[in-house]
Amino acid sequence: MAVESHGLLPLVLNLLLCVLGPSESQGGKLLVVPMDGSHWLSMVSVIQQLHQRGHEIVVVAPTSSVRIKEGAFYTFKNFPVPFQKEDLEAIFVSFGHNVFEDEPFLQRVVKMYKAVQKDSAILLSACSHLLHNKELMASLVAGSFEAVLTDPFLPCGSIVAQYLSLPAVYFLNGLPCGLDFDGTQCPSPPSYVPRSLSVNPDHMTFLQRVKNMLITFIQPFLCSAVYSPFASLASEVLQRDVTVQDLMGFGSVWLLRSDFVMNYPRPTMPNIIFIGGINCVTQKPLSQEFEAYVNASGEHGIVVFSLGSMVSEIPEKKAMEIADALGKIPQTVLWRYTGSPPSNLAKNTILVKWLPQNDLLGHPNARAFITHAGSHGIYEGICNGVPMVMMPLFGDQMDNAKRMESRGAGITLNVLEMTSDDLAHALKTVINDKSYKENIMRLSSLHKDRPMEPLDLAVFWVEFVMRHKGAPHLRPAAHDLTWYQYHSLDVIGFLLAVVLASTFIVFKCCVFGFRKCFGKKGRIKKPHKSKAH
Amino acid sequence: MAVESHGLLPLVLNLLLCVLGPSESQGGKLLVVPMDGSHWLSMVSVIQQLHQRGHEIVVVAPTSSVRIKEGAFYTFKNFPVPFQKEDLEAIFVSFGHNVFEDEPFLQRVVKMYKAVQKDSAILLSACSHLLHNKELMASLVAGSFEAVLTDPFLPCGSIVAQYLSLPAVYFLNGLPCGLDFDGTQCPSPPSYVPRSLSVNPDHMTFLQRVKNMLITFIQPFLCSAVYSPFASLASEVLQRDVTVQDLMGFGSVWLLRSDFVMNYPRPTMPNIIFIGGINCVTQKPLSQEFEAYVNASGEHGIVVFSLGSMVSEIPEKKAMEIADALGKIPQTVLWRYTGSPPSNLAKNTILVKWLPQNDLLGHPNARAFITHAGSHGIYEGICNGVPMVMMPLFGDQMDNAKRMESRGAGITLNVLEMTSDDLAHALKTVINDKSYKENIMRLSSLHKDRPMEPLDLAVFWVEFVMRHKGAPHLRPAAHDLTWYQYHSLDVIGFLLAVVLASTFIVFKCCVFGFRKCFGKKGRIKKPHKSKAH
Repeated sequence: MAVESHGLLPLVLNLLLCVLGPSESQGGKLLVVPMDGSHWLSMVSVIQQLHQRGHEIVVVAPTSSVRIKEGAFYTFKNFPVPFQKEDLEAIFVSFGHNVFEDEPFLQRVVKMYKAVQKDSAILLSACSHLLHNKELMASLVAGSFEAVLTDPFLPCGSIVAQYLSLPAVYFLNGLPCGLDFDGTQCPSPPSYVPRSLSVNPDHMTFLQRVKNMLITFIQPFLCSAVYSPFASLASEVLQRDVTVQDLMGFGSVWLLRSDFVMNYPRPTMPNIIFIGGINCVTQKPLSQEFEAYVNASGEHGIVVFSLGSMVSEIPEKKAMEIADALGKIPQTVLWRYTGSPPSNLAKNTILVKWLPQNDLLGHPNARAFITHAGSHGIYEGICNGVPMVMMPLFGDQMDNAKRMESRGAGITLNVLEMTSDDLAHALKTVINDKSYKENIMRLSSLHKDRPMEPLDLAVFWVEFVMRHKGAPHLRPAAHDLTWYQYHSLDVIGFLLAVVLASTFIVFKCCVFGFRKCFGKKGRIKKPHKSKAH
Repeated sequence: MAVESHGLLPLVLNLLLCVLGPSESQGGKLLVVPMDGSHWLSMVSVIQQLHQRGHEIVVVAPTSSVRIKEGAFYTFKNFPVPFQKEDLEAIFVSFGHNVFEDEPFLQRVVKMYKAVQKDSAILLSACSHLLHNKELMASLVAGSFEAVLTDPFLPCGSIVAQYLSLPAVYFLNGLPCGLDFDGTQCPSPPSYVPRSLSVNPDHMTFLQRVKNMLITFIQPFLCSAVYSPFASLASEVLQRDVTVQDLMGFGSVWLLRSDFVMNYPRPTMPNIIFIGGINCVTQKPLSQEFEAYVNASGEHGIVVFSLGSMVSEIPEKKAMEIADALGKIPQTVLWRYTGSPPSNLAKNTILVKWLPQNDLLGHPNARAFITHAGSHGIYEGICNGVPMVMMPLFGDQMDNAKRMESRGAGITLNVLEMTSDDLAHALKTVINDKSYKENIMRLSSLHKDRPMEPLDLAVFWVEFVMRHKGAPHLRPAAHDLTWYQYHSLDVIGFLLAVVLASTFIVFKCCVFGFRKCFGKKGRIKKPHKSKAH
């Protein structure tokens, strides 16, 4: 079978894209309104590729961004905001801290909800400062862009695109509360499409389906507090009534960092392009420091441990429990950790401030991956075929972890409740029980066996939208229906009325006929009777 | 912008596939159970490509096939059937004749239904003779195939695949009565997904939506007569209960000859791969005969005229009307026609027994295309950017024609009612009104601007299914739900019951409390009264 030829071809294609691209491409102008944090990291690879293909790219972001900064392959335009970079970083740190606070469930939920509300107010103010920055907006109007590339998690880019009358390409992992399904008009039957945060599989029990249905009912209200203010801001700026649905439905093409080896198969739409795993396409050789660690690990190999970009410190007690567990395995553990080193740190555990996660996982010596189950990490685990021990912390991470666990590719631990022994046992299991390695390798081979690399696909569709000024032929007519028309409630009502009216008429006719019959007899009888009288 | 580089890349990719393919590929074994007629024509290009990539292909078909015959790049295994090739050809001819018979609508429908029933009985008998051919089936069992490629329009290939426990790749244009939606578990809201044969657009009026809903209700019954006998045959051969849904739902991957420049955007599923336009990927130079015709046409150019492989003769009166119209335009008309030449044939009209449709349409001198609006022809018109005059005859042709007309790329005529002037006027309009050419060129550029050629995509997915023994990760859990579970009727019923029970309990409690209150007063009053007494 031709696995090899398909492995070679994308490489050749990539080379050709690099060689032919810049010289062939006339070069368009693309405006990027990104989302800060880890969301920026995979988007930047697409921007780099587009730059190599001869396009001029302008990235717009607040002065106080955590990760978005000047880059060699784009023009960076920033705008002042009434908060500092440190304020954002403090949000990240406190978010990380909240996760580990051992408080009652309801108290944690309320705290988290308040935090989300506060954080989204900051993000909204950033958006407002962009849209009200007359000088910057005027320069964007004069910029003759062809399209806007943005992450709709923060619908600011959608407002900018509508203000500039430009088509938008959405680049995202997914949206909360089913906003991505609403925005694409994509059906998602609650009977087998698990709702986010439900931790349901696709094959659900009756009670899981009840839970899924209840979430379906309440989720529109959950996100309203965060997204409605953006709709109000858009209404003010665009000077017309704009709903959250209008903001989300504006995307011409949705580049979704999703893949069916991770997510369960479900309906999709023609303008949804699946580019899951885009973040692990390019692999670089290890630096001398990490190469040395990996080589020194010998036959036991290494375990890569990171809880993502938002959580790099954890409470001391928890850190000591984890350090204890890591000391119980023969592998060398590379742990991304910026807090003060736990006093019981074993010799096999190396703390680093940062690690090249994807490159380390790609090394043949990688035996296991301890991760918070963020989507980037999960795909790096899948691409490189490394079994995982997952400690989901917040957001979609619990769902991601459950999906990988259901496929036998990893073990999920509750980071608050787990003991040192639990972690050590989980690590030994995924490393020594061959089924975990076999399952993740099977997922890996399915994931990587694709007609085209996700990065090339993303670049193609951004360029497509630039070339054709959107993709109206992929926009379903569902966008132009009201909710009752979409569900055919008016048609069903009409048909029911027709059926009822017909039944009524037939019934009345029968009664009339019946009366006529019996009435005649009656009338005949009456004269009889009268005659008899 | 980089349109050119995307045009060049697939070419290079194709070359690489040809060069690298056979040497890299280890070569698998593929069983093909095709459908006769025009359905075979586009499938054969995929088979040829798979052969070039080193696979061994076995095609199974009845001895009395019209188009399927021995080929250089596959092993042909045929089996005897109790009918002759001439019987099938007679069906085609009579089908063509029926179309032109000017009878009342209801009479035509009944006649057509009877003809379909009779023809499907012949096709069913062919399938039965394959499945009961012990020697042939034993050779297939011993054949160590990796997958079955088949057209589910005739679900015989699905039965064979299930008998051999092999995964199946479906290759099709679509199925009648929404069987393709049922088979893939793909949602298709009747509010904006027009039902086949409805001639509805995607933006429907209220009455069109009512019509769409009514067709949705009745279509399961329409196809039952044709497809249920295949389910019975499958039940007998596989020795278990098999439904039509089981036969259709068996496909691992659906290669759908559809594209959203032609069809309206609608929900899809992860295992549906769109390969519309696969039939016009390869273009050959014209033969001397046709080259001469085209060159002689001068500045006026040519009009290509064909009513498809099933209709090559038409009643004399209609043929004369058409010939009259063709004489009124300055273009040279190349008309595929096997009947006796109309006596009024003008000098500019050349009758041919066969014509290289796609190659002629690809010539810069092609000005218009007179077609029956079969899906192959429509895509050839789109690929080559030639405006169309459409005379839909049966099946999905009316829908196809309406879609192209709604996009301003052609004019639809009723072949029974049109006059000579209507045809001449339509031809002059699509040739001289520039908007038709502009619209078809816009569709053409959208259609051809794709990340990968449909032929390569089809080959990739057939090989994918061969490599991975199916594509279970793309199979939605919906297949394992009953219809009431799928629509969450049990969950909704349960939730309603809970709400009603809660309301009832709350009501009862209120009544109880109310009584207790008033009852107490009553009881207090009573003793009062008694005391008073």
